[in-house]
Amino acid sequence: MNAAFEVAAGPEGFRLGRLRTAHGEVATPVFMPVGTQATVKTMLPDELAQIGVSILLANTYHLHLRPGSEVVARMGGLHRFMNWSRPILTDSGGYQVFSLAPFRTVREHGVSFRSHLDGAECFLGPREAMEIQSRLGADIAMVLDECPPWPCDETTARGAVERSLRWAAECRAWKTESAPGSHARLFGIVQGGSHDSLRRECARRLVEIGFDGYAIGGVSVGEPEPEMLRAIEASVPELPADRPRYAMGLGSPTQILEMIARGVDMFDCVLPTRIARNGVAFTPEGYLHVSAGRYRQDERPIQEGCPCPACRNFTRAYLRHLFNAEEILALRLVTWHNLTFYIHLMHAARETIRAGTFDAFRRGFLERYRPPATPVPRTMQRPKTRIRHAARA
Amino acid sequence: MNAAFEVAAGPEGFRLGRLRTAHGEVATPVFMPVGTQATVKTMLPDELAQIGVSILLANTYHLHLRPGSEVVARMGGLHRFMNWSRPILTDSGGYQVFSLAPFRTVREHGVSFRSHLDGAECFLGPREAMEIQSRLGADIAMVLDECPPWPCDETTARGAVERSLRWAAECRAWKTESAPGSHARLFGIVQGGSHDSLRRECARRLVEIGFDGYAIGGVSVGEPEPEMLRAIEASVPELPADRPRYAMGLGSPTQILEMIARGVDMFDCVLPTRIARNGVAFTPEGYLHVSAGRYRQDERPIQEGCPCPACRNFTRAYLRHLFNAEEILALRLVTWHNLTFYIHLMHAARETIRAGTFDAFRRGFLERYRPPATPVPRTMQRPKTRIRHAARA
Repeated sequence: MNAAFEVAAGPEGFRLGRLRTAHGEVATPVFMPVGTQATVKTMLPDELAQIGVSILLANTYHLHLRPGSEVVARMGGLHRFMNWSRPILTDSGGYQVFSLAPFRTVREHGVSFRSHLDGAECFLGPREAMEIQSRLGADIAMVLDECPPWPCDETTARGAVERSLRWAAECRAWKTESAPGSHARLFGIVQGGSHDSLRRECARRLVEIGFDGYAIGGVSVGEPEPEMLRAIEASVPELPADRPRYAMGLGSPTQILEMIARGVDMFDCVLPTRIARNGVAFTPEGYLHVSAGRYRQDERPIQEGCPCPACRNFTRAYLRHLFNAEEILALRLVTWHNLTFYIHLMHAARETIRAGTFDAFRRGFLERYRPPATPVPRTMQRPKTRIRHAARA
Repeated sequence: MNAAFEVAAGPEGFRLGRLRTAHGEVATPVFMPVGTQATVKTMLPDELAQIGVSILLANTYHLHLRPGSEVVARMGGLHRFMNWSRPILTDSGGYQVFSLAPFRTVREHGVSFRSHLDGAECFLGPREAMEIQSRLGADIAMVLDECPPWPCDETTARGAVERSLRWAAECRAWKTESAPGSHARLFGIVQGGSHDSLRRECARRLVEIGFDGYAIGGVSVGEPEPEMLRAIEASVPELPADRPRYAMGLGSPTQILEMIARGVDMFDCVLPTRIARNGVAFTPEGYLHVSAGRYRQDERPIQEGCPCPACRNFTRAYLRHLFNAEEILALRLVTWHNLTFYIHLMHAARETIRAGTFDAFRRGFLERYRPPATPVPRTMQRPKTRIRHAARA
């Protein structure tokens, strides 16, 4: 199992890895675009591959409710269903304990959800989470965990850690007993909120159980950036060097570079795709608000030299027009650009780690990149296509 | 000017043509996808070219209001603005006299609109319509006309015809005087409602003025199909054989085949793109409602043998899931399929006209194709991306 991940240190000591899965290899550090509902919003799988995306995320809870994990299984699994031949990591549903808090009750043996779609009962315990991920055909499955909110006192955090550890052990046991021949990797998830000692303890006890990789969860739940980085810093030293480390739900370009510097290998985040649909494009200088009036007659692309179709073929003036005219092509083009930006950032990170110039690259990037004055709130309203409604009109 | 259109009769007498423009040749009969706001909804220009689209439509009124025809002109014209290198035909705004009736007043010298976006005054007379289309850089410009509603009594229809003829002559004069060296073609538009003698008279008087091509307007305004075909049949015999004939805003696959049989060369319609966004795909058997429950686990493509990416790479089950999950990719894929269906239908029409088998092809198509029980109403609500709203959230 160990050969599933090869990791080496670059000249400056930063990590470079290769993660092997049944659907091919993934070079780390890696960014994984989010395809919650078996699609990375607005993008075709071919287009993702063309950008250089090597692994995608999908979601246990959402796909189990719709279209149903049995349906996906009968259609040949998630790869065939969504026509994506590279690796897929599925989140376990633990994050929905946080994001869908009004719809769930955490019990000692799992989580009872009332479907956010139709109110139907849906129970997710360690066994259910594993069975669903197995039916989906995930290359990397995540243990079921309890992701607590922020802020969270030590007693609450302790309770979530104990439950998460028990569920993690049960997920591990399920895999050994029920899917011994499976090529799927199973990752544990470190919880513990902003409590360093809890983070360390949770990490140690997960390592005792033994997983193919380790994620740091319970970050990106509204905490200030310094607390987020501290949660990473408390967890990483307890994790084995020869297993991949994954920071869940993170982050901005600068956060990702900071976490790479701290030994994290894998990242996922809705940020590039979600803010694209709100008209925000990433550039080396920071955010570019595509629909702003100052771009009305701007002949420049979003970003000079960017190889994405938005930058190769269209001006800011045209993209601004598409956003103002509420055209779907606007969402496509800025999503394409933002994913290209992230994937190229990770490529540059790997290249500079290899060359021993990552630290200079990171510092140069941070100097040039001006973070937005007001960060995009995580509860930012997502744009909707009212296609269901319209389909019945 | 005559060499702008070469037309020949196939062995059965049906028309085959080549229309030359500054941006290349168009083989007729041809279907022109609608890109009202300088984008064919959800599609990239490259993708349209790949399907075989040879000419697009755009709209004078809409582009003049947003982003503004001066903006488009300063950005190098519509071709460069939207990155489309093949021909573009621009509608004059005459159709908005019908579709935006609550927002306009028809005067003898033109139409006063109150912008449907912000209520601003906007006057469109023959000169304004020509100037805007010239600024956009249209390969084919349309005269300003008055498109009356249906039903429409003879007095009202007569009024619209007289105004349309006067405006047509003024458009013709503007072109001769103000843009004598322009490569743009100018098409006249036959009005007359459901009144055959008015149609004939309008066609004859337009031909006396003399245009590069002739459109039949005031169809597809809610009239029953037999009346629509009669309006075509009344107009076509009055039009010169050596000029292209264009049925505006039409139609369904079967209507288009019927109109080709009656000597029409050019067609445009929002039907394939609009119903795609409502989850309806075209097949040789008729409509396929992609989101229907019976496709939940259907492994087949929308249409066997179709070369579009939706059919090559995805099952009905997956497309149904995307629609139910309100994913933008659903809109893209079904739009792509429907445009492919239309473009291939036109290709088959040209091939069979050339081979002398069009009549059999048309009859075979009509036998197999089952029209929808309830036709999609033309006022069907369009799906909206609420991106403007979300962008400010």
